[in-house]
Amino acid sequence: MINVSVLGYGTVGSGVVEIIRENAELITKRAGEEIRVKSVLDLRDFEGDPVQEILVHDFNEIVNDDEVQIVVETMGGLHPAYEFVKASLESGKSVCTSNKALVADFGPELLEIAEKNHVNFLFEASVGGGIPIIRPLKISLAPDEILEISGILNGTTNYILTEMTNNGSAFDDVLKDAQAKGYAEADPTADVEGHDACRKIAILTSLAYGKQLDFGDIYTEGITKVTDRDVAYAKKLSAKIKIFGTSKKAGDKVSAMVAPVFVYPENPLYNVDGVFNAILVKGNMVGDVMFYGQGAGKLATASAVVSDVIEEAKHVDVNMKTLWSHEKLDLLPNDEVKNMFFVRLRGGRAENEAKVKEVFGKADEVDAGFSDEYAFVLPEMTEGEFSKAAEKLGNVINRFRIAL
Amino acid sequence: MINVSVLGYGTVGSGVVEIIRENAELITKRAGEEIRVKSVLDLRDFEGDPVQEILVHDFNEIVNDDEVQIVVETMGGLHPAYEFVKASLESGKSVCTSNKALVADFGPELLEIAEKNHVNFLFEASVGGGIPIIRPLKISLAPDEILEISGILNGTTNYILTEMTNNGSAFDDVLKDAQAKGYAEADPTADVEGHDACRKIAILTSLAYGKQLDFGDIYTEGITKVTDRDVAYAKKLSAKIKIFGTSKKAGDKVSAMVAPVFVYPENPLYNVDGVFNAILVKGNMVGDVMFYGQGAGKLATASAVVSDVIEEAKHVDVNMKTLWSHEKLDLLPNDEVKNMFFVRLRGGRAENEAKVKEVFGKADEVDAGFSDEYAFVLPEMTEGEFSKAAEKLGNVINRFRIAL
Repeated sequence: MINVSVLGYGTVGSGVVEIIRENAELITKRAGEEIRVKSVLDLRDFEGDPVQEILVHDFNEIVNDDEVQIVVETMGGLHPAYEFVKASLESGKSVCTSNKALVADFGPELLEIAEKNHVNFLFEASVGGGIPIIRPLKISLAPDEILEISGILNGTTNYILTEMTNNGSAFDDVLKDAQAKGYAEADPTADVEGHDACRKIAILTSLAYGKQLDFGDIYTEGITKVTDRDVAYAKKLSAKIKIFGTSKKAGDKVSAMVAPVFVYPENPLYNVDGVFNAILVKGNMVGDVMFYGQGAGKLATASAVVSDVIEEAKHVDVNMKTLWSHEKLDLLPNDEVKNMFFVRLRGGRAENEAKVKEVFGKADEVDAGFSDEYAFVLPEMTEGEFSKAAEKLGNVINRFRIAL
Repeated sequence: MINVSVLGYGTVGSGVVEIIRENAELITKRAGEEIRVKSVLDLRDFEGDPVQEILVHDFNEIVNDDEVQIVVETMGGLHPAYEFVKASLESGKSVCTSNKALVADFGPELLEIAEKNHVNFLFEASVGGGIPIIRPLKISLAPDEILEISGILNGTTNYILTEMTNNGSAFDDVLKDAQAKGYAEADPTADVEGHDACRKIAILTSLAYGKQLDFGDIYTEGITKVTDRDVAYAKKLSAKIKIFGTSKKAGDKVSAMVAPVFVYPENPLYNVDGVFNAILVKGNMVGDVMFYGQGAGKLATASAVVSDVIEEAKHVDVNMKTLWSHEKLDLLPNDEVKNMFFVRLRGGRAENEAKVKEVFGKADEVDAGFSDEYAFVLPEMTEGEFSKAAEKLGNVINRFRIAL
């Protein structure tokens, strides 16, 4: 019998308890041992919920319980999640978590503590919700040098952009609708400004290269400035606008970015719509591999957490090494990152054509029927070159990178 | 240092040797130990190829070599692959293979022998080439009861159907073109008759439920009877024709089938075109998860094999249990499997409308502009009910199941 404690009886935590109960028989078979939720930590009471019988309000009751071998952290936030996870690992308990902020900030340290204590720290649910991505990246793609990771890593923004694309509606209207439907939070900042996707691409990139990429170092742009006109231009090019978290190997360095991009139908991520997430990984041997599914949601995310619980139950006192050191990943400065750009300028063709040709040389005009502006696609150049040129022009309305 | 022997220096085997050499540094890091190909078994000689130095012609040199800890079987075929794999496991070596025929036929026996000898038998590359699916199904989806697996499991047939869809061309013409391009073999039977996909869905289904599903028991239909008119009807319905390997939980039993189906855009497999493969898995907790990538090809498939090599290098003398017993999976008789059907009858509307109404009750006509036939979509019914009714009608040209 393996005893599990769950920290935080919110959406994901209650999902973990539900799955371990509902699928008990098959989980026992697959783990090779019965798995039982012995205690749940939450400050609240849940009168009438069977969880009440195993509810505790004091973390010490869990960390000092020698029968508890696995701690599930589903509280979210950095503190006290960090302190609780650290103490659990130090007391010889394995931990799994769905907390991307915790993993992005403290991944290497917590992995090191787990290794020292011959236990495990797993975090499949921290990226892509129910989509298996962390474990496939660590194990299935281990023979490959990772050349690129591009992900639709946030369901809220993908839903908003999908609605804008399908209905030509404005960002603000779709956001309100998404909030009403529960797809977006009352304070949507973390989603719409790209902060959520940024932590996720930081985790994936750190794992792919075995070194720490701080999310604060990643150039991050949200979707609040995407307009219906931008969507119309994308359609004119047979593209869709999606927000990608992307990292790419660039010589000895790695580039990383979160930004809305124009995606063409040839890209497997083009078809990932609505609240679904997907992650495309390019290996130098395996080529393109894509993982697709529900990037959020109670049971999907909890399923990923429970897959970690089962792995930890099968590896009691045996550390499964994860390569992710404290050493900083050598990030390519954003000015040196190469991209293709789509650009919109204020003023019509007559005012802009000659100037654009002078500044950029080659530019392919895109006419979506708006005579008060001039839009075009540029060949690949560095972000630095583009910024300088855009500044020179002085009349850029908006611009997007193009994902090939 | 972990010593590996490769049995068979064909497409996949030479890819394995190439990857272990090319990506040596990162593979060593991820495996925690240096991995070296010590010997390669092949009856042929490869003068001028560096492999010649480590080439052996006698399997006994490998099975009796105590330094060899991992044997990679990439010979294909059942014999002597089976005998070699069995002898390797019995001599305490772990084995990984890309050989779907071997796994479909002897999976439970070889897993049992591996367990007895505290070694491992892994076969990630046997299904979906480079796509991680075996390990995610075993580990990442372990918390879930699997409700359905639907896969585009064969690149050759998906390429042919994609070309027929995009260009309205006839099966025979596209097949010839595919053979010229090397996407189809000179004898394409195993692909176009669905036998290849059948072994793959047999393996996935056996793993999902932990019991043996013999591929010979799976109803299997190829794509040789798919015509350009069928494709035109699919288009009329905004669908595509694709060949699926499918299994579904049906009460206490499981249904399984390989057949061309009409797929609608809402299905994530709809967008999987050309030589790409993808597998959609529905779990009772995680919902829909899809895995996408190159289902064949030298380096993609070899990458999957090497991921098994690395796992086995990390688990020397420790068996990672795989649940797949000899016990037969309780298969739902095909007559009882429920499906929606699209049907084409000889003769126009006038001759058929009343009769169809009498036989089926409800039927939604599909008019693709062919006045010499009458086509319609039927609501869900069992395969048995449909067959009986079709026999009664006596003028069925073709019919397809509809994948929802």
